Amino acid sequence: MASNLYLALMHYPVVNKNGETIASAVTNLDLHDISRAAKTYGVHTFYVVTPLKDQKELIEKIVSHWKQGAGAKYNPMRGAALDLIKIMGSFEEVVEHINSNNGEEIKTIVTSAKNNSRNVGYGKIRDSMEQGKHFLLLFGTGWGLAKEFVEEADYVLDPIKGDSEYNHLSVRSAVSIVLDRLKGLDRLKGSERLKC
Amino acid sequence: MASNLYLALMHYPVVNKNGETIASAVTNLDLHDISRAAKTYGVHTFYVVTPLKDQKELIEKIVSHWKQGAGAKYNPMRGAALDLIKIMGSFEEVVEHINSNNGEEIKTIVTSAKNNSRNVGYGKIRDSMEQGKHFLLLFGTGWGLAKEFVEEADYVLDPIKGDSEYNHLSVRSAVSIVLDRLKGLDRLKGSERLKC
Repeated sequence: MASNLYLALMHYPVVNKNGETIASAVTNLDLHDISRAAKTYGVHTFYVVTPLKDQKELIEKIVSHWKQGAGAKYNPMRGAALDLIKIMGSFEEVVEHINSNNGEEIKTIVTSAKNNSRNVGYGKIRDSMEQGKHFLLLFGTGWGLAKEFVEEADYVLDPIKGDSEYNHLSVRSAVSIVLDRLKGLDRLKGSERLKC
Repeated sequence: MASNLYLALMHYPVVNKNGETIASAVTNLDLHDISRAAKTYGVHTFYVVTPLKDQKELIEKIVSHWKQGAGAKYNPMRGAALDLIKIMGSFEEVVEHINSNNGEEIKTIVTSAKNNSRNVGYGKIRDSMEQGKHFLLLFGTGWGLAKEFVEEADYVLDPIKGDSEYNHLSVRSAVSIVLDRLKGLDRLKGSERLKC
């Protein structure tokens, strides 16, 4: 069965530490860690979104090193994960790409470290996915997705709460945890198996 | 209440891609991502373990940049997380440090991407933590913890299973997911709240 979960790492529109909307720089380890997590959790496609030409070229260079270059010989498992990456110039291009390849209606989900009046729980999205609905999970780099962008999404996921007031996870950690909450198996053994 | 969960990132004894036991190099983003996750999930202390003098100095330099240097002004949240780090030369030094500061008996838990006949589920460890038992979670860098080291641990956690056969998560992702499974709150809303 083809996966009905898509992931996008947004480098625009995101905010910097002063709250200004910017296009952030691509981080090498974001590509590696997030594609490996996406592959582990059966994500259909991992879109890396940036409007900047030099940043698109940087992503292509990294991906190609591990898919065809010296990296492919050194560790083929990296290329297998980076193979999920598609580079896009904007959110609109991502949605168009999914629609033209899939035809299903896609619902967008944003994540944020802040509480939002529209927050929904992980169980609700998990249930909808198991019923066959298609979702696009959007994560922001820098200091997070721009506010207007968050407001336009179909769903806003509950912030990840740990066991303290500190909520400054890296985007790499946040993606990993959200994927595990939405798609992870075997959290409990046998009859205790989690359905959330 | 003081936390009863300790974390150690081991750079020795770990294996390289050929299965040889080595001391691996420290990765800057491991320190950042894992200390931020540790802070989020209320970990008591994050031990970074390496026997190599130059690697210990590198860790000290990174931590000090964000705790006292230019980084502390740029983003104080990084220093707050890196504050959890204690640099140790060996596993034995970690256990001695915990015992001398805590006095409680500590049980060691290792994690591995491979199945092991001694695997235990997340629910069991979570229950024991809620009963007040103290645990030290050990993660390997490189290609993972050396086999003899895994065999000597008190518990071997279930491998993280996603929704595919691919199981090559980064150590940064693996730590984040394991902490969320052991200490995360609010996976489900209200009465559905997960207890695992």
